[in-house]
Amino acid sequence: MRNLFTPFHRSLTRMSSHKLCMIPGPIEFHSTVLDAMSTPATSHVAPTFINVFGETIEMMRRIVLTKDGQPFIVSGSGTLGWDMTAANLIEAGDRVLVINTGYFGDSFGECLETYGAVVQHVRCEVGGRPTVEHVTSVLKQDGPFKAVTITHVDTSTGVLNDIQALAGVIKTTHPDTLVVVDGVCSVASEELRFDEWKVDVVLTASQKALGAPPGLSILVASQHAMNIFQTRQSPISSYYASWKRWLPIMQAYESRKPSYFGTPAVQNIMALHVSLGRILQHSMDDVFKRHREVNARIKAHLTDKLGLRLVPLSLEMASNSLSAVYYPEGVVPSTLLSSMGEQGVVIAGGLHRAIATKYFRIGHMGITVMDDEALGYVAKTLAALDTALDNQLGVREKL
Amino acid sequence: MRNLFTPFHRSLTRMSSHKLCMIPGPIEFHSTVLDAMSTPATSHVAPTFINVFGETIEMMRRIVLTKDGQPFIVSGSGTLGWDMTAANLIEAGDRVLVINTGYFGDSFGECLETYGAVVQHVRCEVGGRPTVEHVTSVLKQDGPFKAVTITHVDTSTGVLNDIQALAGVIKTTHPDTLVVVDGVCSVASEELRFDEWKVDVVLTASQKALGAPPGLSILVASQHAMNIFQTRQSPISSYYASWKRWLPIMQAYESRKPSYFGTPAVQNIMALHVSLGRILQHSMDDVFKRHREVNARIKAHLTDKLGLRLVPLSLEMASNSLSAVYYPEGVVPSTLLSSMGEQGVVIAGGLHRAIATKYFRIGHMGITVMDDEALGYVAKTLAALDTALDNQLGVREKL
Repeated sequence: MRNLFTPFHRSLTRMSSHKLCMIPGPIEFHSTVLDAMSTPATSHVAPTFINVFGETIEMMRRIVLTKDGQPFIVSGSGTLGWDMTAANLIEAGDRVLVINTGYFGDSFGECLETYGAVVQHVRCEVGGRPTVEHVTSVLKQDGPFKAVTITHVDTSTGVLNDIQALAGVIKTTHPDTLVVVDGVCSVASEELRFDEWKVDVVLTASQKALGAPPGLSILVASQHAMNIFQTRQSPISSYYASWKRWLPIMQAYESRKPSYFGTPAVQNIMALHVSLGRILQHSMDDVFKRHREVNARIKAHLTDKLGLRLVPLSLEMASNSLSAVYYPEGVVPSTLLSSMGEQGVVIAGGLHRAIATKYFRIGHMGITVMDDEALGYVAKTLAALDTALDNQLGVREKL
Repeated sequence: MRNLFTPFHRSLTRMSSHKLCMIPGPIEFHSTVLDAMSTPATSHVAPTFINVFGETIEMMRRIVLTKDGQPFIVSGSGTLGWDMTAANLIEAGDRVLVINTGYFGDSFGECLETYGAVVQHVRCEVGGRPTVEHVTSVLKQDGPFKAVTITHVDTSTGVLNDIQALAGVIKTTHPDTLVVVDGVCSVASEELRFDEWKVDVVLTASQKALGAPPGLSILVASQHAMNIFQTRQSPISSYYASWKRWLPIMQAYESRKPSYFGTPAVQNIMALHVSLGRILQHSMDDVFKRHREVNARIKAHLTDKLGLRLVPLSLEMASNSLSAVYYPEGVVPSTLLSSMGEQGVVIAGGLHRAIATKYFRIGHMGITVMDDEALGYVAKTLAALDTALDNQLGVREKL
């Protein structure tokens, strides 16, 4: 029998020419998470895996700070979380308010309309966010809504929405309205207290602050949301996104029993299990605090030291998990990004349609933040940015 | 900076107490595939990954033997392929014929109905398959149908359907009818000639004979299917499963251009890329032939040597990629499965509702077959089965 285990080759693969992935997800993964990704073939109903999946479901509750929220962990990208929300909780004609800060609000709105929702957007200028006062007046004037969706951190602009304040006015105005949080770029980095703030749905993905490779759509639904799902009148117009299919599967794995609807992504779930275990070595309060602290240092470097302008209109509305920054005058975007690349650091270009070519984005969440001192990824990234800017602006001055 | 690369620890993780996964998927993975699964964080728009994804799309055409079929590779389980088929190709009221050999025909039918299809099933006895004559008479009497679905290999019974013959009569009776093949348990093991046989959709998943971990839904659609999709009258009632969203993404990656709808499962696609590359070192003719040869040896062992009865009613209708076998009298199912486990081999129990507790299943596809001589997985599995049966039947004789 040939030996299939070649750690030396694998270690070479991993190390050779790897560039730090400092985009707003996928983020850098811990070596133990990558180890779990390469677990040999394991049956999706093997007792070891059933236990891992069950624990992963339980850990997701602790991550979002809920006692009785119902987690769903399904093969798919973060986008599938929009379908799960819309397909299960929305019926044709239901009115939904989208608190829109850019690309992801637009797209979530399209998804909701696909499932029959009548969508109203509260928009704002690029880099801004609808104020709580504005949202309150819309809720009072045009409500009640079946649901209100909020992008916690808009990955396209780096804008952070105030979930606590928004959920507060939504529930005060109309307690039945579902508070839906797109937490793809916030869960396990930005403060989020599912039960305390009366959130009904938070959806996210594995490859952001949860620290595992992309491939898993992750959602937690409140008991209020589950009741609305259980008592809906019309059939669910999706098969793969239907909680009717997935709820028994999640309950079975959590009860440590075998079950089958679709084959789960065994390796990805094992990797998520390792990553959530690492996160939960800290209290979530510590996780939030640490992200705020490291972010403060990064933002100070970008604005005070380098004099760069952030896409968010104020520091207060800037996310702690990524930085969206305008290129300074005289800098050629492609040259800056490739200079970073040459220094071994990958950052992202713009995504918001109105300003896509005018800014770049740096992700700072998960192990990059929690293990900052040991890893030094933030320092390496900022040093590379200093050099890239120096090079270009220096060249320009000489012309 | 801490060294995150711990090949020694990883190799221990991989080797310690791993049991051969001989179920009908997930199958055992080659070490180079697992290496790719643990590739460090890589941006979904990094040039290296764009190239890998583009090549993977191209390789899928070669796997199913099509020149101009359109591949879709999307994060999800195999089940999502049913939604992609139904959401994009079916409009409310469209009539679909399901050639039903068990669990997967029932479920595909439910999925089609979710998207508005009027479904008619051609059923047969457990372990059988509807005859070509029977299907022909239904097509003539009750057709035309918008689509006919066929489970190529029914993972629940181990029954193989004759796609060439069925597609032939479907297209002869009504050339526009879509021939939809559920190839989850057949692609890259059973003979399938997409263009030559006039197949319109084949859907599969990463964890079967394609040899990569679960997490990817893979589908190839003919140009005829794409035309029906492009000219449909009603809007597509899914967001995540919509080809309107994914077609531009597949086309962009194939043109080696960055693009975004949802973050692809970077590591899973890298693993699939490695696995497809290994498969395509052989001609597909050789792949099919090798699966037939190894299967013949396995079936002979099960029936001639051990005297076991197969679930499929004849050898001709038995799959080459798995064996579904009734427990012989006097054998306690749980004892047999655990005896196999103690010998380091995991096999699967039954899945077809009518006989679930009465049979077991062994998967034999992918590297288990292609690298049979080097790996010895088949020999180890059959030897373990011999021992497990000897032990139980021996104990029984003594009582």
